[in-house]
Amino acid sequence: MIVVAACQLAPALGDAAANRDRVAAAVEDAAGRGAELVVLPELVSSGYAFEDRAEAWASAEDVDGSTVQAWRRLAADRGVVLVGGLCERSGDSLFNSAVVVDPSGVRAVYRKAHLWDRERLIFDAGDQAPPVVETRVGRLSTMVCYDLEFPEWVRIPALAGAQILAAPVNWPAAPAPPGERPAEVVRAQADAAVNRLPIVAADRVGVERGVAWVGGTVVTDADGWVVAGGWSSEEEAVVLAELDPAQADDKRIGGLSDIHADRRADLYPTSGWVRPLT
Amino acid sequence: MIVVAACQLAPALGDAAANRDRVAAAVEDAAGRGAELVVLPELVSSGYAFEDRAEAWASAEDVDGSTVQAWRRLAADRGVVLVGGLCERSGDSLFNSAVVVDPSGVRAVYRKAHLWDRERLIFDAGDQAPPVVETRVGRLSTMVCYDLEFPEWVRIPALAGAQILAAPVNWPAAPAPPGERPAEVVRAQADAAVNRLPIVAADRVGVERGVAWVGGTVVTDADGWVVAGGWSSEEEAVVLAELDPAQADDKRIGGLSDIHADRRADLYPTSGWVRPLT
Repeated sequence: MIVVAACQLAPALGDAAANRDRVAAAVEDAAGRGAELVVLPELVSSGYAFEDRAEAWASAEDVDGSTVQAWRRLAADRGVVLVGGLCERSGDSLFNSAVVVDPSGVRAVYRKAHLWDRERLIFDAGDQAPPVVETRVGRLSTMVCYDLEFPEWVRIPALAGAQILAAPVNWPAAPAPPGERPAEVVRAQADAAVNRLPIVAADRVGVERGVAWVGGTVVTDADGWVVAGGWSSEEEAVVLAELDPAQADDKRIGGLSDIHADRRADLYPTSGWVRPLT
Repeated sequence: MIVVAACQLAPALGDAAANRDRVAAAVEDAAGRGAELVVLPELVSSGYAFEDRAEAWASAEDVDGSTVQAWRRLAADRGVVLVGGLCERSGDSLFNSAVVVDPSGVRAVYRKAHLWDRERLIFDAGDQAPPVVETRVGRLSTMVCYDLEFPEWVRIPALAGAQILAAPVNWPAAPAPPGERPAEVVRAQADAAVNRLPIVAADRVGVERGVAWVGGTVVTDADGWVVAGGWSSEEEAVVLAELDPAQADDKRIGGLSDIHADRRADLYPTSGWVRPLT
């Protein structure tokens, strides 16, 4: 079993130094309570509600910039694996990225492939599959927010043997019927269950230029059950849970059934998937 | 708007005549309350818990057998579209099928492609994609139970323009944490939401040779919210709801986002989907 922490934070738009401090405090808190994996929100380095690409560019950093350097020090000092959202500048490109850092340094940079709403006017879309990295907490994958809404995307690291999916998210606020879990949580539960892949999703809070958030930070187990969080909130929080990465190695789900082996990949359309014959 | 009915019934194992009567009563009830689409459980013609293929074979019928003939009469008499689960014999093959019937006759026969647990010892697996049929209630698709656990499969009719997915199911009983919807309901909600495709799933009840069921019959809208049913029950029931098939024609989900157009099909692996490079 490992202890994971999903940190629900309120980044300050365009204030990288304040955001580094906020992250440092959360990681210290999480590590002090035993967390071995710490997941931070999408774009926690910069905030989210940019007017345009130029404004986002001004808040962007290289992967060897001050933010990731600070995360590397935190990971090394506290012996944790850290996954957080970075407004990433690379050459002339601008990505909404997730960075995986452990005590040895940067282990992976993933660039969001499915851009939500106006993000497509601001960021370049990634074109690489989610990574799977061997870490001290198990084989770890990551993707960002809207990526989770595409089951094809979650399948990729799941089939590649990931044991935990760490997802920085900024889930835009939307009403849920009374008593129902947020829609994004429901979909994360399904992503987990159909792959037997535990998911740790760190959402944000803090209204930014009129944009509000679900605040639905959640940890699910391999069956898709919520083990911590998963209800809407407006508060910053460090959500802790225990997970067993080995759960993900067993895709059996009852009797002779195996949720991966039972796929009929021979029948699934090739990548186009447009208007199959029926 | 259309009125749909999902009939949660308790078929009698191996008693086709009794099951025809049970279905007739449910369809009369549903139609009398305004239903235009009536969905019946998986294997409602035969029951489920067969010992082996030979026993299932003895309960199987051709698509022009007594059961589907009775369904055709019901559909014509009441002017409804009916989707139900048939233990189907075809030549030497035995399928766990869903049959779509309307007042004009049999519109589609779909054979379950993902066989659950011991079904693989009893049935032949279908190898055709879910159909999409133009009916008086809209463009209708169908698949059976475990098929819903494979998002790749749900995508096929969704991308082909289906407006409603009617799913005969026999969800095996499993505990859910207190206050949580059944796991199969959560996954159906996600299937619906990531495709903006309303789902009508008719489950069964009635313990059969020690096998019990969720009794989680559910209707979701295009956002994946439960509009009727969706909690475990041991009772037979006709679950009615209103749905707007036109919801499925609009895949926009906020601002510039479109849950189908935003797919990165160019990046998804081809059908094999095994061990992609990471």
